[in-house]
Parts: sequence; C-alpha cells; structure tokens
Amino acid sequence: MPNENSYEVALQKSNDIREGLAKTPEKFTMLTGDRPTGRLHLGHYFGTLKGRVELQNMGAKTNVLIADYQVITDRDTTEHIQDNVYNMVMDYLACGIDPDKTMIYAHSAVPAANQLMLPFLSLVSEAELARNPTVKAEMEASGHELTGLLLTYPVHQACDILFCKGNVVPVGRDQLPHIELTRTIARRFNNRYGKVFPEVDALLSETPLLPGLDGRKMSKSYGNAINISMTAEETAKRIKKSQTDSERMITFDPENRPGVSGLLSTAAICTGRSEVEIAEEIGMGGSGQLKKYVTEAVNEYFAPIRERRQRYENDLDYVKDVLHEGNRRANEIAEQTLAEVQDAMGMVY
Amino acid sequence: MPNENSYEVALQKSNDIREGLAKTPEKFTMLTGDRPTGRLHLGHYFGTLKGRVELQNMGAKTNVLIADYQVITDRDTTEHIQDNVYNMVMDYLACGIDPDKTMIYAHSAVPAANQLMLPFLSLVSEAELARNPTVKAEMEASGHELTGLLLTYPVHQACDILFCKGNVVPVGRDQLPHIELTRTIARRFNNRYGKVFPEVDALLSETPLLPGLDGRKMSKSYGNAINISMTAEETAKRIKKSQTDSERMITFDPENRPGVSGLLSTAAICTGRSEVEIAEEIGMGGSGQLKKYVTEAVNEYFAPIRERRQRYENDLDYVKDVLHEGNRRANEIAEQTLAEVQDAMGMVY
Repeated sequence: MPNENSYEVALQKSNDIREGLAKTPEKFTMLTGDRPTGRLHLGHYFGTLKGRVELQNMGAKTNVLIADYQVITDRDTTEHIQDNVYNMVMDYLACGIDPDKTMIYAHSAVPAANQLMLPFLSLVSEAELARNPTVKAEMEASGHELTGLLLTYPVHQACDILFCKGNVVPVGRDQLPHIELTRTIARRFNNRYGKVFPEVDALLSETPLLPGLDGRKMSKSYGNAINISMTAEETAKRIKKSQTDSERMITFDPENRPGVSGLLSTAAICTGRSEVEIAEEIGMGGSGQLKKYVTEAVNEYFAPIRERRQRYENDLDYVKDVLHEGNRRANEIAEQTLAEVQDAMGMVY
Repeated sequence: MPNENSYEVALQKSNDIREGLAKTPEKFTMLTGDRPTGRLHLGHYFGTLKGRVELQNMGAKTNVLIADYQVITDRDTTEHIQDNVYNMVMDYLACGIDPDKTMIYAHSAVPAANQLMLPFLSLVSEAELARNPTVKAEMEASGHELTGLLLTYPVHQACDILFCKGNVVPVGRDQLPHIELTRTIARRFNNRYGKVFPEVDALLSETPLLPGLDGRKMSKSYGNAINISMTAEETAKRIKKSQTDSERMITFDPENRPGVSGLLSTAAICTGRSEVEIAEEIGMGGSGQLKKYVTEAVNEYFAPIRERRQRYENDLDYVKDVLHEGNRRANEIAEQTLAEVQDAMGMVY
C-alpha cells in the first residue's frame, strides 16, 4: 500500500478533489493566503489567484488569509505592513475575488483562531516541529536564525486551515509536509477529544511555475517580476530592461536562453498560445519585437484588471470595508469553532 | 558587575520589590496562577495563596490565572477539568482571595491574550526555547515526550504576565529562567516596535517549602498532602494513616525522621510555633499524641476557611459569576493590550 503521505497519493487525492469540485463544490472549503511583504505579481496571478477565482465561481467556500504575522517569521520588522495589506486587498478585488463570495481577512484580526495554537501545540512533539523540511528550507532561504514563530509555523497553518474547517488547500508539492501536519493535528484532536475537524487535502497546482522575465525564479528582489499593480508604461519599461541575448533568431530554449524564454513564457500565458508558436512567429524579429509582443500581451490581459484596480485605489474606504467585513465573518466562524473546541475538551466554565 | 540574571541580583530585586510594595503597592501588578489538575493543598496555601492574599490586601493589582491549557503541556487528557476549575475558584475564595480586588480568570477564556503568542514567538529563537532548563526538568518529571506546548511554555507565560502588564511574579528559584525569558521578550518587543511592556521581576518566596506528611515533596500522587477542601474528619484520617517510625520520643530531625518531622512542620506552620518547641512539648507522647496535635492544629487553622468554602460549594452560581466576571475583565485588558501591540507593529487596517 502506498504511503498515505507520498506524492502519488497526494496527487490522486488532488485529482479526486478536482472531480468532486465539479460535481459538489459546496462540500469544499478552501483556505489559502499570502504574506503581505509587497505587491502581488504575475507569478501569483497565474499560479494561485486565477485558481482561487475559479474555485470561488464554481461555488466552493473560499477563504483568503492575509498572513500578516508570517511577515515576522523571518524578519525583524513590520515596515509598510498597513500599505501592503491594503494593496493586497486591491490586488485580490481587481483579479476577481468577490468579497461577497470569498472571505478576505487578516491573520492578526482573529484572536479566537489564533488561540487554537495552544491546544494544537499540545498535539505535536518538538521532534515533529524540528524535522519539518519546509521550515528548514525557509529558514535557510531567509538567512535569519530560526525563530519560535517559524518553528511553529506549520501549527499556525493548521489553525488557519482548521478554524474555518477547510478541507482543501491549494499548494505546491514542497508544501505537502505542512498539509500532512495539519491532517495529523486534526486527527489527534478528533481522537483525543471528539470529532470537530475535517480531513484536509492538498489541491496540487496543475500549472507549471511562471518564471521571471529573465528566466529565473520570479522574485521581487531580482527585479524580474511584473506586478499586477503596475501601469502599462511601467510594464513596458520593465520588459524593455529585461536581459535577453545577442542571437537575433527567437527560439524557446529555457536552459540556454533563459531571458528570451522567460519573455516567451510570459507572453504565452497571457495569450493562451504556446511559447514555440510565438517564437516562430517572431522568428528573426529579435528581442525588440519579442519585447513589444510581450508588452502588448501582458498589458492587454491585465488592462481590465488594472482598470478595476485603479477604481479601488481611489476608494480606500471600500477596500477597508471589505477587510473589516471579512475580519468580522472570520471572527464569527473562529468563535464558533473555538466554542466547539472548548466544548470537546470540557473547558467550559 | 554581577550577571543581571544571577540569583543574587534576582534576590536583591525581589527585596527591593518587598520594600516598594510596602510604600507604593499600587505601582505593582502581580500575576500568578495554578494548573487545575486537582485540589489545592496546604503546600499551595502556605507557599503561595497566603502571599497572594497579603499582596491583594496591601493594595497591589493582583491577577490569578487558572492555567487550564497548562494541563495539556504534558498529558493527553483534560479529564475533570471543569470540576477542577470550579473547585479551584472555591479554594481561592475560601482562602481570602477577594474577587473585587483580584482578577480570577481562565487561560482559555482570553483569546486576545493568547494571540500574543504569535508576535512573541517571533522574538525568541528555537535555540532559546530548546535550552530552557525548567522546560527540560518538567518534561523529564512528566515522563511525557516534549510537546510543542511545553516547549513554548515560557512564551505563554510571557503572554500571561505581559497581557496585564504584570511587573511582579511570585516564583521559586527554579522558575527564574522563565521570568528572564519574559523580560527578554518584553525588551525585544519594546526595542523593535516601541515601548508597550514593563520590566518584570520575580518576587522570590521567603517561606521554605512545606513538606508532605511523610517528609517527602508534597504531592497528590504521594497521598501525603492535606487538601484545603478536606473535612476535619478527612484530615484526621489522612494524618492518622501517615507513616512515622517506631521511636517513641518525638524529635525534629527531617533527614533521619522524615515522617515525624513532616508532621511537626505541618503543625508548626499552622500554629506559628517552631517544630522543636512542639517536639519537646510532646516528648515521650509518641506518634499518637503528635498526630492528635497536628490534626487539631490543621483543623483549627482551616476551620474558618473550610466553613467559607462550604458556603461556596453550596453556591456554584456565585462561583461561576466570579469566574465570568474575571474572564470579562481579563478580556477587556487583553483587548486593550493587543490593540497597543497592533498599533506599535503598524498592524492596524
């Protein structure tokens, strides 16, 4: 029998969820979120935001967490956090997340959900926390010493998922160990105190990761990302500055021509065409024509999104209202779940 | 210069606090508490409850936490927790803790205080958590594997102390590392985000630990403790069953005669006389007379306390009201402090 926590089993379950979503979307509660450390970019859009909107519109219960406490798992400052949070809500709304259907809320605004940390921490051992491979990788990537907050991060994630009784979490393969720990916590709680929490499974991403304009991993620090919030002019400028190579003939070859190929992938995802098709069309047109093509593709795709975003930028009161209403609903759900937890544990006085 | 965290410095500060308390008690906010795992006994009474009542009556701000989540730091069940919590409130009230002056509340009832776990965990490293000597000792004593909850226990304690801006915590010497970590967390928070929290110091106990009836550490599991809630008859029975030795002449010799000496210490603390004086008075009267003396001493001392306790046992509604009002006040304070924390961190949306 294959290991329940193997990639193959996770993939099978993920496919089952996709089938289930098509038939009975109302049975699924999805939880996902983002760290508000900067603006969301095309990688976020095609990697996750678009999928959230699809789940929302299919009729699943969708919850989007602005993970503000995650900002300090590996840094010593919360600089610009308010601005980042408001802008994140604008990005969400612009991309089609509908606050009437999707609950958008801030991690720090839901004390009853955060309190679940205490019972949940009693259900895992120090050894289980210490051997989590994702936590280690994140610590190494950050260059920051391992804080208590990053060490216990999979437990907060369990609180985030389980407070709203989430049973689907869209993740990449590298995040599977976190989902496993959430499942473990839910099971142990249910076994020890009585059934309160559902089984949660990963919804594995089907789209390959969009590379940055230079072909490397898309990242704010590499300057190779186009933000959703950029204007058409800023987009053109960033694409213009992106590095290609001296070969005139445009071909799709990610390994040997990362810059050209990164641009082709960006154009491909925005137009729905294949990279090879676009490369052949441009042919001897060189980087100049390629960049022009990419710029038009991105700006055309994002024009309606950016137009909507502009409206939200000019109506910060509405943006705040959306967040406040999401926070209110999250608190209502969290207080209900915490009451069930207290009841199961007999901690009712 | 002596190490700030040395015992000598802690003792000096503790003595300064005692002086300060006599002059300006209103400047001190005390936080202490108990795990609701059973009934409170004479060790608790003379070791801490009596001192709390004194602080309360001097005019310090006094807060008593029923640490219900601590029950699951090293055990897998919350059995009898509701009963234990109600009985703990009865013990407190009977011993003179006045709910108009002292805030009595349950740890699990204050989500905003528990949320402080998240920012506070970001201020300590895994290494700092892992090397805490008290946590290790508690884990070894429990025989349970080290849970995430016990590992992070000094951080919850920091939440407990700091949510109400406590600056005095009555502890034994072995608990000093916890107070140090609370101080570290408060300082780091203040340095990083702006001053919100006070400096906290230990109020070191001046009374030596009361041994159990058999001279060993007083413990429910040894059957060598007299609970505050016992009747005079139950007390007599427990003392009658306690083991002494075959020597008729009563002498105070804790090392060689633990049973006789444990009884003498119990009588001494209840009568205010010295063990040696009592021993000499009984002389050749043997264990029988000694036990009779101890029984009378305990029952006389605790008669008014037990009489009061009886009244609370017959008025569970009042006991619940006390706890609900304490929980309400604790939430008010916790929400205020959390708002200050959010404000300092810029997490205001």
